[in-house]
Amino acid sequence: MKGERWGRAIIGAVVAALLVSFCPSRDGEAKTVRIPEGEIDPIVWGKAYPTEYEMWKMTDQPEPPGKSKYKRGFDADRITLDKLSEFPFLALLLNGWGMGVEYNEPTGHANMLRDQLEVDASRVKAGGVCLTCKTPYAPKLQKEMGGEYYRKPFREVLAGIPEQHRTLGVACIDCHDTRDLSLRISREFTLGSALRDMGVDRSTLTRQEMRSLVCAQCHVTYSIPKDREMKSEGLFFPWQGSRWGKITIENIIGRIRSDPAHGEWTQSVTGFRMGFIRHPEFEFFSNNGLHWRARAACSDCHMPFVMVGDRKISDHRIMSPLKNDLKACERCHIGSREWLRKQVFAVQDRTISGFIRAGYATATVAKLFELTHRKQAAGKRIDKTLYDQAKDHYLEAFYRVVFMGAENSVGFHNPTEAMRILGDAASHAARAEALLRQGLAGAGVTVPKKVDLQLEKYLNKRGSKKLMFKPELRVKDPLPVK
Amino acid sequence: MKGERWGRAIIGAVVAALLVSFCPSRDGEAKTVRIPEGEIDPIVWGKAYPTEYEMWKMTDQPEPPGKSKYKRGFDADRITLDKLSEFPFLALLLNGWGMGVEYNEPTGHANMLRDQLEVDASRVKAGGVCLTCKTPYAPKLQKEMGGEYYRKPFREVLAGIPEQHRTLGVACIDCHDTRDLSLRISREFTLGSALRDMGVDRSTLTRQEMRSLVCAQCHVTYSIPKDREMKSEGLFFPWQGSRWGKITIENIIGRIRSDPAHGEWTQSVTGFRMGFIRHPEFEFFSNNGLHWRARAACSDCHMPFVMVGDRKISDHRIMSPLKNDLKACERCHIGSREWLRKQVFAVQDRTISGFIRAGYATATVAKLFELTHRKQAAGKRIDKTLYDQAKDHYLEAFYRVVFMGAENSVGFHNPTEAMRILGDAASHAARAEALLRQGLAGAGVTVPKKVDLQLEKYLNKRGSKKLMFKPELRVKDPLPVK
Repeated sequence: MKGERWGRAIIGAVVAALLVSFCPSRDGEAKTVRIPEGEIDPIVWGKAYPTEYEMWKMTDQPEPPGKSKYKRGFDADRITLDKLSEFPFLALLLNGWGMGVEYNEPTGHANMLRDQLEVDASRVKAGGVCLTCKTPYAPKLQKEMGGEYYRKPFREVLAGIPEQHRTLGVACIDCHDTRDLSLRISREFTLGSALRDMGVDRSTLTRQEMRSLVCAQCHVTYSIPKDREMKSEGLFFPWQGSRWGKITIENIIGRIRSDPAHGEWTQSVTGFRMGFIRHPEFEFFSNNGLHWRARAACSDCHMPFVMVGDRKISDHRIMSPLKNDLKACERCHIGSREWLRKQVFAVQDRTISGFIRAGYATATVAKLFELTHRKQAAGKRIDKTLYDQAKDHYLEAFYRVVFMGAENSVGFHNPTEAMRILGDAASHAARAEALLRQGLAGAGVTVPKKVDLQLEKYLNKRGSKKLMFKPELRVKDPLPVK
Repeated sequence: MKGERWGRAIIGAVVAALLVSFCPSRDGEAKTVRIPEGEIDPIVWGKAYPTEYEMWKMTDQPEPPGKSKYKRGFDADRITLDKLSEFPFLALLLNGWGMGVEYNEPTGHANMLRDQLEVDASRVKAGGVCLTCKTPYAPKLQKEMGGEYYRKPFREVLAGIPEQHRTLGVACIDCHDTRDLSLRISREFTLGSALRDMGVDRSTLTRQEMRSLVCAQCHVTYSIPKDREMKSEGLFFPWQGSRWGKITIENIIGRIRSDPAHGEWTQSVTGFRMGFIRHPEFEFFSNNGLHWRARAACSDCHMPFVMVGDRKISDHRIMSPLKNDLKACERCHIGSREWLRKQVFAVQDRTISGFIRAGYATATVAKLFELTHRKQAAGKRIDKTLYDQAKDHYLEAFYRVVFMGAENSVGFHNPTEAMRILGDAASHAARAEALLRQGLAGAGVTVPKKVDLQLEKYLNKRGSKKLMFKPELRVKDPLPVK
């Protein structure tokens, strides 16, 4: 895959070819094909829906370069982008498990399982559960294997997938009904369960809401609770206590922190057992967000309608509106593309700035905890209340930083919410720092004014590939510092 | 004025009456009236432009209640709203000068000088300079009196205004040319000078830009530099080093902090001599803001066009779009008024939350400085570097809190910028706290875990009116706290 670097021109040519080849008559003819119930193979679906199928297949190809400012991991001139080099503080904060070893920008939807097979093996240590969003076979495997699906080694569960589909990413059946192509939730055991937890009446969901919910099967955060041997026990979305349109960061963190079993790993710098937050697109977007309140669905912007012959179909080359020349934005907004792009960047610049500041502030606290623990081991007594309060603030900051680092839109899905979360993150981090500095100084420890983060230690020789820091990838704070 | 509480219905009726009475023929006739050059009296202008005049006059009347969520100071059911009761931390932070004695929400444009005469006298201690944005006579007075205009006692300079106009607020001549009603900058000695400082070529300014700049004569921050006897020496906008469309908070604070002469008052809690930031609407709105980039002018939203007979005129009842039932918003945005209103509130809720959090964080640092100074006076030696760094962070936090407290839109003029500024404020405050706690603990001082702000001390018996805290006005954090 990596060898094939298609430029924008090539992609354009292919789309043009599609628009010509799938003329109405051929589509009409194709629709007579019946898809057997439960059919997973996209090639079979492709016989009935050749245009959508060809577009979906294109998601395994790199995207045109130079269109996005901050999401360039699948640009044709780059391919795989090391997030730990982009944001070095993440290497420190995530040190202790797979995310701190190799953490790349995602590539295309069709590649997700391939990407997973290529990444450092520590990333799939949690077991079969890691397949939940990577293969259309996940619901079937989970149903057949029960609890073993989650805990068994990743490769073992993977072997349960027919050989020809062991690198197949998200496919038609993940979102569509075999009978009539209508939208359906295939992940009853994750999203279905989470909606029940929130008391959502599924019978009232509109098609427009479904055009977000099929994406929310995977573009959400989830937790993998552990048993005493740290084996995966299941998977759930921490939405309990939240409600539709109001899944808050506060509630998510509250849920994660409510049970030690949600601790999935141990942060090496602090020794704290922690939970984690993954790509919370749906939660972030839907929490009183501007476009959500305008009733936009994920598909409106990431799969805008295109005309193919006389048919209006969703563009199955699922991608960022920036990479698609803001065609989706133009459905509602006037102004030149360049102008629209700059509006997006104005939001993203502020978000990136806030992310970097909150990230370094949080990493600084982690190092102060490391110092604290060293001094405690050497017999210094740190005031317990100060320590506990500091830890509480630290965890609040950590989860917020991870939340914003994981969401895919660089703040755009909900601009003021992004800034609110980052502001609170920085604030919690600095509160933690205040309490720790007081505790340490009170115990007679000299605390350095500027804390050395020793980032090289976490950035270099990562995992079996001995990955190194690439300083040229580092994202600089786009806004003035003082 | 306070006796006349007009409800929404009455205002509606008056507007309806205006729309009827100023029919085209009457307007056509009126336009033959010539306004003498330099004419200040709005009654004379009103003969030529009766509709605009009547509308402008209505700005002295209270606004319909229940429309705005956070700006209710001139609502007909309230009238004058004590910002120090709304945000008690401000009483602490501003204690030491007039702003900490009586700080009300503004009322209407026509009332500005009346409001000033009613407020605690400490608010005009700076002298004649305080008239700069309150009377259309200011340019004339400044020209005639030179440096004395700034420093002479307020009442003395006020006496230079013809008696019948000593309560006249902003008037026609402040924004318009006598010859043809075209927009003009009347405040050459403030805005004109600031634009020159930024190298703005005035000849290239568009009418649309002028529709913001006339407002920017007053809706900006300014500094009043002091001589050795703390007498006012002048007035300037701290825009030097900034550029058009990019007047940043960082630059503004940098300018204010660049010269001790910009210290206008002494904060009682800390003993620090400080500058101040006033209603920075133009700076905030124009700094890469969404609506600014959409080429919206202040007048588009606050003075939307209305049809009067066959004439399209700007609504001179200058007011918040919220109070005007979002009529201005509907020019560009679809969606019901209720929906639009909720979009505004979503932004404002986040801003208010961030403001309250950053405000209390900053007030906490002020109290820690008070403790530090007390301990220093008692002979404790606090590490100087820690102290200096803490002070630096504290000032950065203070100016940001004041900036956001003074801007009039509760963040809406530039939502992500609001959240960025508040995030940085909270972050600076907490950094300062960290360094102070370390410094104090290192000197053997026991620092309380929770700092008592002693707010009653600052909130009650303020000034000659002995103003008291009104707990029912206090604005509560609209968002979850953890």
